[in-house]
Amino acid sequence: MTSTESREKDAANNAAKHGVWGSDHPIGIAVLGMGTVGTEVVRVIRDHAEDLCNRVGAPLVLRGVAVRDATKDRGISPELLTTDAEALVTRDDVDIVVEVMGGIDPARALIKTALTGGKSVVTANKALLADYTGELAGAAENNRADLYFEAAVAGAIPVVRPLIQSLSGDRVNRVVGIVNGTTNFILSAMSETGADYDDVLAEATRLGYAEADPTADVEGYDAAAKAAILASVAFHTRVTSADVYREGISKITAEDLETAAAVGCTVKLLAICERVTEEGGKDHISVRVYPALIPRKHPLAAVSGAFNAVVVEAENAGRLMFYGQGAGGAPTASAVMGDLVMAARNKFFGGRAPGESVYAELPIAPIGDTPTRYHVNMQVADRAGVLQTVAGEFAKHGVSISTVRQEGHDSGARLVVVTHHAKESALADTVSALAELDSVTSVTSVLRLEGTEE
Amino acid sequence: MTSTESREKDAANNAAKHGVWGSDHPIGIAVLGMGTVGTEVVRVIRDHAEDLCNRVGAPLVLRGVAVRDATKDRGISPELLTTDAEALVTRDDVDIVVEVMGGIDPARALIKTALTGGKSVVTANKALLADYTGELAGAAENNRADLYFEAAVAGAIPVVRPLIQSLSGDRVNRVVGIVNGTTNFILSAMSETGADYDDVLAEATRLGYAEADPTADVEGYDAAAKAAILASVAFHTRVTSADVYREGISKITAEDLETAAAVGCTVKLLAICERVTEEGGKDHISVRVYPALIPRKHPLAAVSGAFNAVVVEAENAGRLMFYGQGAGGAPTASAVMGDLVMAARNKFFGGRAPGESVYAELPIAPIGDTPTRYHVNMQVADRAGVLQTVAGEFAKHGVSISTVRQEGHDSGARLVVVTHHAKESALADTVSALAELDSVTSVTSVLRLEGTEE
Repeated sequence: MTSTESREKDAANNAAKHGVWGSDHPIGIAVLGMGTVGTEVVRVIRDHAEDLCNRVGAPLVLRGVAVRDATKDRGISPELLTTDAEALVTRDDVDIVVEVMGGIDPARALIKTALTGGKSVVTANKALLADYTGELAGAAENNRADLYFEAAVAGAIPVVRPLIQSLSGDRVNRVVGIVNGTTNFILSAMSETGADYDDVLAEATRLGYAEADPTADVEGYDAAAKAAILASVAFHTRVTSADVYREGISKITAEDLETAAAVGCTVKLLAICERVTEEGGKDHISVRVYPALIPRKHPLAAVSGAFNAVVVEAENAGRLMFYGQGAGGAPTASAVMGDLVMAARNKFFGGRAPGESVYAELPIAPIGDTPTRYHVNMQVADRAGVLQTVAGEFAKHGVSISTVRQEGHDSGARLVVVTHHAKESALADTVSALAELDSVTSVTSVLRLEGTEE
Repeated sequence: MTSTESREKDAANNAAKHGVWGSDHPIGIAVLGMGTVGTEVVRVIRDHAEDLCNRVGAPLVLRGVAVRDATKDRGISPELLTTDAEALVTRDDVDIVVEVMGGIDPARALIKTALTGGKSVVTANKALLADYTGELAGAAENNRADLYFEAAVAGAIPVVRPLIQSLSGDRVNRVVGIVNGTTNFILSAMSETGADYDDVLAEATRLGYAEADPTADVEGYDAAAKAAILASVAFHTRVTSADVYREGISKITAEDLETAAAVGCTVKLLAICERVTEEGGKDHISVRVYPALIPRKHPLAAVSGAFNAVVVEAENAGRLMFYGQGAGGAPTASAVMGDLVMAARNKFFGGRAPGESVYAELPIAPIGDTPTRYHVNMQVADRAGVLQTVAGEFAKHGVSISTVRQEGHDSGARLVVVTHHAKESALADTVSALAELDSVTSVTSVLRLEGTEE
């Protein structure tokens, strides 16, 4: 930096501290997509221009918004709208690109073009990041640009920045989150009303909490993408969505929630990123998304409706929890705008966002090797000796039983077995064997149990 | 930056990504103080050297630790210990100073010397920051150094960085926290056991949760310093401890907790930073620390023992909550180390921490102008007409009553009045008038009520 440049920056820094509204060093912004999040981002850039200018040190100026249909009235000056996103992200007067269009294509190519041109990028695109962070972070690094993505996980809740920065001097051992609002709304409603999955999903769709095609949410794809992002930053290891074991909530029944309540638990769709330390060996990690029982006393049990929460356990910090709104236009825009201000400050003062950190390269364990506790629900014949027979099958497969609960019913008895930690494969063999028993009418559900001390 | 420098930085950046253990560009660290936090910081620098190196891009090398008594065995090489802190912070091979000695002097002068010498500083010193951030941040800015202080508020919980960075594109309206573990431990224990303040304080001292002289904690000075820091970063306004209205918990009685429980509340020492928007006028802020009733359903009510939690309400983000361990050697060291890694990256790659931002300069309202709800507990004569007389006094002073609860006792009756929002001055006048009434034996306590929707 020349001494003139240095003096200019000092002046700018001083101006940022004491107010620079009116400064003539604008930072040009392009926004890709004007859905619920994009609309809020554009509104904040316009309505809070003075505050943003004072926080950055220079005004943020919206250069254009890429949309599919530029003729639609969107409450902003029509000349800002364009259907040519490619041209927008390559404009010389654009310094930062905000990508809130979602989807893999054309977002992937547009972000890469922007980064290759040295423009910083702020994105909320979890699906894209879960699979292409390596490629995009590489483009950012090679061109000295920033790639920020706080909004990709848990909406307004700061969790990506705390993991990358605040916990950068600690060793994260576990990240467990409720990171999908749709499924949490459905499970909360099923738990509160006793209604069945299909009825609650229909209601959620009617209320706008679920999309017309709810697959990405209810089958856990959205949560798995977020788990991949969280695991990557928590463990300094590249984790993609293909590395995440995934089960959704579409098979959860009203009876599952009823039996969960009977044992003092509730059912949540959890994203779990875990470091497993084995004596003498290298650490490995496990990343998985599935519905699981958690005790009602667990801090995540109280997270209901469309809210999100993430629990982080680190060696020195201990257990931290972050809670807030995980989706929606304004909350997601809050996270996008925080990243945008930081990217703009870096453009203005110099400095860079921390790049991708994957030095640890921890191996990712397959789900079969990951021990968890299980809650096995069976319909059994109501006669003496059944419990003994069932217990024998668990023992035979090396699965240790923690508690058993038996209830008489009209058509026999219900038997609920909660196990100690067991490997997926051992449990699967046990369940197959149980299904063959004369005294077991059916294994009605197998759910994992998380969040217990044991 | 010359092109050679640039290439070197690129190589270093690449190394940081893929592992640089063994790099020969060390970052020199000086630690001031080796109490519970300093000991943990030194341990982490030593035990996690390889991870830290990979995250920074260069090794962190401990140059020395300033202590009062350098002859004491502290489990580290004796030549690292020095009583000459001044000499340590001016060493040429020290790039970053970690201040964990506490207190105003000599910490203030040492930090200023370090910053003036262009060294970045990481501090956990809330008392110092609450009064001297302006002076220290100025020294940092003038010498292109960083001043980081995540550990000064709420220990391991990332809350300073989220407020400064993650919420930099949002408008924070309210920060309410339980930020002092000692008082929260005492109030939780009083609530659980029904014991009186003095007995629980004695127990807390015995267990090490309270210091021999507990004044800074129990009288709210520690929480007030943290409130000043939180308000400063949340509202882009310089707030010092003198601006914070402060009441401690030493007058809280077992009966207060009992009557709180009777109305579905619990008592917490709260640090409250609030933006007050008045139509047509400029926003102002209110910063205060006092024990208050909060409803049991409020997210802060469940924060018990030595834990801390901070609720942040922002225009777009909505309500966020951050929860974790607010004190202790390892948790505080986690926050210090996160700041240290970021400061070291800035030293290595270029870049600066966001400096002090005080452009908003919002006026700070005196406590008398800040309306809150009140919970007034009285001992009254057990005869007809008392309620009417008491209600009349509230009405006369313009204080609107929300609920009244009356209970017969041996020696008369207890009357608990919960008001709607009222100004401090109006409430004080009401209480004086009540004390004059023949039918009121005594006003046994006046506590504020927070966290209700009303």
